[in-house]
Amino acid sequence: MKKWFFEKELPNIAQDYKIGWKLKKRVYSGRSKYQKIEILDTSALGRIFVLNGILQLSEKYEFIYHEMISHLPLFYHKNPKKVLIIGGGDGGVIREVLKHPLKEVFWVELDSKIVEVSKKYLPFLSVKNSLKQKKVKLFFEDGTTFIKKFKNFFDVIIVDSTDPEGPSFPLFEKKFYKDCFLALKKDGIFITQSGNFLDQISEIKTVISNLNPFFSYVKVHRIFTPDYQGSDFSFTLASKSIDFEKFNIKKIEKRYKKIKGLKCYFPQIHFCSGILPKFYKEKLK
Amino acid sequence: MKKWFFEKELPNIAQDYKIGWKLKKRVYSGRSKYQKIEILDTSALGRIFVLNGILQLSEKYEFIYHEMISHLPLFYHKNPKKVLIIGGGDGGVIREVLKHPLKEVFWVELDSKIVEVSKKYLPFLSVKNSLKQKKVKLFFEDGTTFIKKFKNFFDVIIVDSTDPEGPSFPLFEKKFYKDCFLALKKDGIFITQSGNFLDQISEIKTVISNLNPFFSYVKVHRIFTPDYQGSDFSFTLASKSIDFEKFNIKKIEKRYKKIKGLKCYFPQIHFCSGILPKFYKEKLK
Repeated sequence: MKKWFFEKELPNIAQDYKIGWKLKKRVYSGRSKYQKIEILDTSALGRIFVLNGILQLSEKYEFIYHEMISHLPLFYHKNPKKVLIIGGGDGGVIREVLKHPLKEVFWVELDSKIVEVSKKYLPFLSVKNSLKQKKVKLFFEDGTTFIKKFKNFFDVIIVDSTDPEGPSFPLFEKKFYKDCFLALKKDGIFITQSGNFLDQISEIKTVISNLNPFFSYVKVHRIFTPDYQGSDFSFTLASKSIDFEKFNIKKIEKRYKKIKGLKCYFPQIHFCSGILPKFYKEKLK
Repeated sequence: MKKWFFEKELPNIAQDYKIGWKLKKRVYSGRSKYQKIEILDTSALGRIFVLNGILQLSEKYEFIYHEMISHLPLFYHKNPKKVLIIGGGDGGVIREVLKHPLKEVFWVELDSKIVEVSKKYLPFLSVKNSLKQKKVKLFFEDGTTFIKKFKNFFDVIIVDSTDPEGPSFPLFEKKFYKDCFLALKKDGIFITQSGNFLDQISEIKTVISNLNPFFSYVKVHRIFTPDYQGSDFSFTLASKSIDFEKFNIKKIEKRYKKIKGLKCYFPQIHFCSGILPKFYKEKLK
């Protein structure tokens, strides 16, 4: 067995740095119709979930990404009831989303094998528990086709995909963002992962410019997570009528106090994750 | 020549992850009385400065660390005039400090070889320019001895040291912090680097508990810098009479606008770097 796990080189990015994680055990390795799936145990991150050679989440730090991608849009919205999750087959996002008092959650994952593997090997993501709830509807379908069935329906859409290549590529395209726009209600909020600030700035810029033609407000947030190369990671949000800059943390205090089990998110971190250092703002211009 | 630079393993920290930087050129390698000094050119970070096998700064990102360790205490103070820098032989901190209208800057570095090497190989740190200014007084001395000469004298003390081992170890001890307390004026501000949040939490806790007996207010700030393993890096501040939690970003706007050439720092980033996610606050308890 190899002693260290290093991520596979990403296409379009010259690999000029790499991070290695010391391995303890190789737990699972398999292949679905769409991708290679691995579960590994490491010393620093605990159990990790790897797709096509790229680290997707770790037992130790997954909550940072999953809390932030879920609670940012759910708290930007005043009273979310209907939520759509595209991707997130591991179950991290649905676990977080269900901490809110929602009516219906539609969850669309292309690759059923991921949900199956997560159920078995990543119990901390609570897929079994989430699927027990009647309000959760899981579909194994292509998100870009699924979204077309809905108009003016969702309060929040969360896109939790892999990097923009292969099956995830269409989730970063203009026509998909247009369909998300149409599927959202007037006060709806959209969020997608948009890569790291270190070597994927052009990806963030593409996401912004593909969202801009449809949405009135687009805003980039920033989180730190050791799970991803570069560590300094971005989410891009979009809305039709909610001005992100007018967000008032005092107004969400009451709702926030009712949400149990948060380890990273709290109202001030929400606000601060939206403040980018000067050099990132320059880069995104 | 090796193709990748990996940091040396730190004592007391089991190496369970490692970051490699692709090398372009080995520029300089030498040894002072205190440490091994290397200058390397990398693809991702530009030129890097390495002491005893540990990356100290990079051409591309050094401004994040240097701006934040300098402007945080200088803006917490209402009107700083006399500043002491302990360490920082590379010149990054003095370059930033001199952006403020100060009267006197005392700069104490143990290892004259570092200043010499920086002058020659790290021109972006502007050591030559900084030393041209009359208000700058550079001493090659042990900071723990030097500090004892001053009572009620400095507005701001900045400790920019290497990790707490070898010659830097005494800069993390209680007796040194007591001397800093005595050397500061009543409204004086102290800051030190205190390691990364990922695997040096015990170091941050030691710094806090060694400062606590003397100072009324102690606060940890957090920055992201790709230069350090773990990326999520801490500074710990202390003061006798300034309550960090009462910091008002509106009050510094006017002074801030007069400071030229900042790439990372601005008032909102100052505030937000002081907001830690829930799990870090728990870890520091």
